[in-house]
Amino acid sequence: MPVKLVKNALGRLVPAEVNGKQQTPYMGVGKYRPNGKKYATQISSCADYPADGNKTVPTLKDALLKAGLKDGMVISTHHHFRNGDLVGNQIFDIAAELGIKNLTWVPSASFECHSPLVKYLEDGTIHHIEGSMNGSLGRYTSTKGMNGLGILRSHGGRYQSIQDGEVIIDIAVIAVPTADAFGNATGDRGPAACGLLGFALADSQYANKVIVVTDNIVPFPCYPWQIQGNYVDYVVVVDKVGIPEKIVSGTTEVTKSPDRLLLAEWTAQFCDEAGIIRDGFSFQAGAGGTALSIGIYFADILRERGMKARFARGGSNKYLVKMLEEGLTDYILDGQTFDLEGVRSMRENSNHINTSPFTSYNYHGKGNFASMVDVVILGATEVDLDFNANVVTHSDGMLLHGIGGWQNCIFSKCTILPVPLFRDRIPVIRDEVTTVCGPGELIDVIVTERGIAINPLRKDLLKAMKNSKLPLKTIQELKKEAEDICGKPDKANYTDEPVAVVKWVDGTLIDTVWKIA
Amino acid sequence: MPVKLVKNALGRLVPAEVNGKQQTPYMGVGKYRPNGKKYATQISSCADYPADGNKTVPTLKDALLKAGLKDGMVISTHHHFRNGDLVGNQIFDIAAELGIKNLTWVPSASFECHSPLVKYLEDGTIHHIEGSMNGSLGRYTSTKGMNGLGILRSHGGRYQSIQDGEVIIDIAVIAVPTADAFGNATGDRGPAACGLLGFALADSQYANKVIVVTDNIVPFPCYPWQIQGNYVDYVVVVDKVGIPEKIVSGTTEVTKSPDRLLLAEWTAQFCDEAGIIRDGFSFQAGAGGTALSIGIYFADILRERGMKARFARGGSNKYLVKMLEEGLTDYILDGQTFDLEGVRSMRENSNHINTSPFTSYNYHGKGNFASMVDVVILGATEVDLDFNANVVTHSDGMLLHGIGGWQNCIFSKCTILPVPLFRDRIPVIRDEVTTVCGPGELIDVIVTERGIAINPLRKDLLKAMKNSKLPLKTIQELKKEAEDICGKPDKANYTDEPVAVVKWVDGTLIDTVWKIA
Repeated sequence: MPVKLVKNALGRLVPAEVNGKQQTPYMGVGKYRPNGKKYATQISSCADYPADGNKTVPTLKDALLKAGLKDGMVISTHHHFRNGDLVGNQIFDIAAELGIKNLTWVPSASFECHSPLVKYLEDGTIHHIEGSMNGSLGRYTSTKGMNGLGILRSHGGRYQSIQDGEVIIDIAVIAVPTADAFGNATGDRGPAACGLLGFALADSQYANKVIVVTDNIVPFPCYPWQIQGNYVDYVVVVDKVGIPEKIVSGTTEVTKSPDRLLLAEWTAQFCDEAGIIRDGFSFQAGAGGTALSIGIYFADILRERGMKARFARGGSNKYLVKMLEEGLTDYILDGQTFDLEGVRSMRENSNHINTSPFTSYNYHGKGNFASMVDVVILGATEVDLDFNANVVTHSDGMLLHGIGGWQNCIFSKCTILPVPLFRDRIPVIRDEVTTVCGPGELIDVIVTERGIAINPLRKDLLKAMKNSKLPLKTIQELKKEAEDICGKPDKANYTDEPVAVVKWVDGTLIDTVWKIA
Repeated sequence: MPVKLVKNALGRLVPAEVNGKQQTPYMGVGKYRPNGKKYATQISSCADYPADGNKTVPTLKDALLKAGLKDGMVISTHHHFRNGDLVGNQIFDIAAELGIKNLTWVPSASFECHSPLVKYLEDGTIHHIEGSMNGSLGRYTSTKGMNGLGILRSHGGRYQSIQDGEVIIDIAVIAVPTADAFGNATGDRGPAACGLLGFALADSQYANKVIVVTDNIVPFPCYPWQIQGNYVDYVVVVDKVGIPEKIVSGTTEVTKSPDRLLLAEWTAQFCDEAGIIRDGFSFQAGAGGTALSIGIYFADILRERGMKARFARGGSNKYLVKMLEEGLTDYILDGQTFDLEGVRSMRENSNHINTSPFTSYNYHGKGNFASMVDVVILGATEVDLDFNANVVTHSDGMLLHGIGGWQNCIFSKCTILPVPLFRDRIPVIRDEVTTVCGPGELIDVIVTERGIAINPLRKDLLKAMKNSKLPLKTIQELKKEAEDICGKPDKANYTDEPVAVVKWVDGTLIDTVWKIA
């Protein structure tokens, strides 16, 4: 039976129903109002937990069995171990060994290390993934399709969906660098130190059963308790939870590419001329080479003028840590640590603060931090003439990336996307993006190596930059330049069969990912 | 219509219904199993909160009106400002001015500074209190009775009742020493610094509307965020939230009374001989003079033997802080700070840890910290031959104290009550306590100035102390000694009209407080 499609407020076709559940099409920014109550777990009793606080069980298999693992359950994991995760795959190896089928996997993100799970998508151990389908998993989704539709959510959307009961997690498996037998856990120390564990917060709070897995057990209390033992059912001690050098690369470096350096320089200059860089301002830049370089420009400007930022949002790295230690920012509000310096700083410096998708990104909260950030610098695979942007698919339609915090961050006071005008002779600015991940009304500035386009909705920025010497252009002009060089791009060759949907921060459907022909 | 009474597992008569709600009589330790789900608040949307994070409104009255204050609502406050609270009474002054009636007040504790609220109990602004009725409020309850039955709960029971939806808070007013405009708040700094704010955690998480009131607003982010702004609806800035010298007395001192010093010495010696004091042990003692002295004895023993505690539970004070700073304990797990040294340490020392009734005391969690503590030293107004103890009423039946964390703490591995054999010629050890607050099976040792009684259930302790030179006696012997001196005590002269009930940690009714004749 063909899927019924409906048109959302951006004119994109989205399924009316996903994996048997009715959906709400995207209605516009702030237009959909939730009603109903948050999800609530069963009330527990201390009478059912060991009085001495020792919740250890011998193996992950024991813990999964005690947690009642069975067909059709929803299993969640976090991605703080990134490409060094050694626990995620084990869960499904155990499930496959037990002959369990039709699990839903809800990771906060997936990495190439999870490519062995393709075989469980094929044999039906895993029904579908809600979270992100990166690399091999994305390619499988795009070309073959999973047994259910994939659901892509932002970090904030993941918190929202779990909080709101859209996703009910039966078992959360939270791999951690250090824990005590009660289940208190921290990411800032231990052989697999990853900094923090905020992506697993919702899982700990709302999953019906919570399993903590660690290779470094310490006497109670494990402190900080980034994950609170009071939410935890079982603790498993294993030999090794992660591969340290793949968790924190230690190799985050600024870009050396002249084109990317130009993007960084223009972006910083734009922020300066627009009056964004001031004493007490705040910013968020990612961990890519360009973003790192922008941070360094910001630091130079602050140092030169004797000013300081109030806070910098992480993903943290050695450059942000240097700013903190040099007094160029009061705080790092960190969501994940990208290198060993970030981990060290988080452990040692109380102004390097552990945040979570709850504090930072959850749109169904009483506000969140994202909208308070003065400027955020993000990437995109594509941008269209309405400033809508794509971060999950490439222009050939292939699903290769997760949304991360991107949708949440674009609520900042100024969102800037420094992007190349084209990649491999494929224009980045187009009539229409392959997949809309964020509505153009929230994207303020596009910086390319051939010019800068300000969203016409931002009259204040247009006015502030009136006399700038920066090469300000319209987005139409930028698109034309790209097409003059590369030619008009081909439309992606995909079918009318959905393989995944992209949720907006409020749980509505903003777009669909289609099977590739 | 007379209240229907039922007999609980301890043989105490308790109302079948309280303020229109069916009750479960106490069934025994760990016997009552909750079913059902935790309370869940309405899902919010960031679209309804200011994007710049500024939630300030001009006055507390404005905030209460915006929060929808109306007849019959449930209003909560915390007691971290103790007898220096300047906000609690204002709420009801405003309500009275607006002509609002029948409010339920749910403080985490009340103090003598709240005695002006008696007039609102009289005029019907406040219908009844759930929390604690101390001093004047207790005397009013005992002699006149409120319009509804008072409900006494432990700190953990308060968290449990809010979490479980037994108490649904319409508006939580959280007065704080320092906050930002988003509602992040901390107790460890500011003119009214009180250390921490853990008693308001449940309120922030589960109240339908949350108002933060402060006299010290700082730029976002206020860190630590002991209360998270993501739970907060409105922020009010006032001139003064508390009277510092009444918040932290700074005068906590060890006892100089020879009798109490003897109790302290014997208690410490008992712990030592019973093998409780060992490297890595843990303890909790209160802030009274006797308890402080016991802590000092513990410190002396540890220092002498080159050992250290793993953690000491607070109420913290300068003696505990000294232990932490001297390396005699790895951590202070603090629930409230009793003096300025406690506040300083909490602010400066990351091993002085902020805990809450959620982590420490909630019986309807997946375990809590209380049962992991090796030894806890507590007080009592009365103890009976079954080791049942009373902490809320005096032997004349007068309600004068709250339960505090007492019921929760008695889950420790060894609970010791050092008490005088009699007070004002009224025996403390009796055939039957006026009000049962904790069942005898959880109370292990009674230390008096005339001898020490071990609960016969604790065969291990009896064995460990077999050869002790301490004056071990039976509880019957202790009772006889008291009665030989003071005579058989009179029974309290109360009526058969309930004025309040005492909840056990699981929400069941353990006893009733009766109107005094």
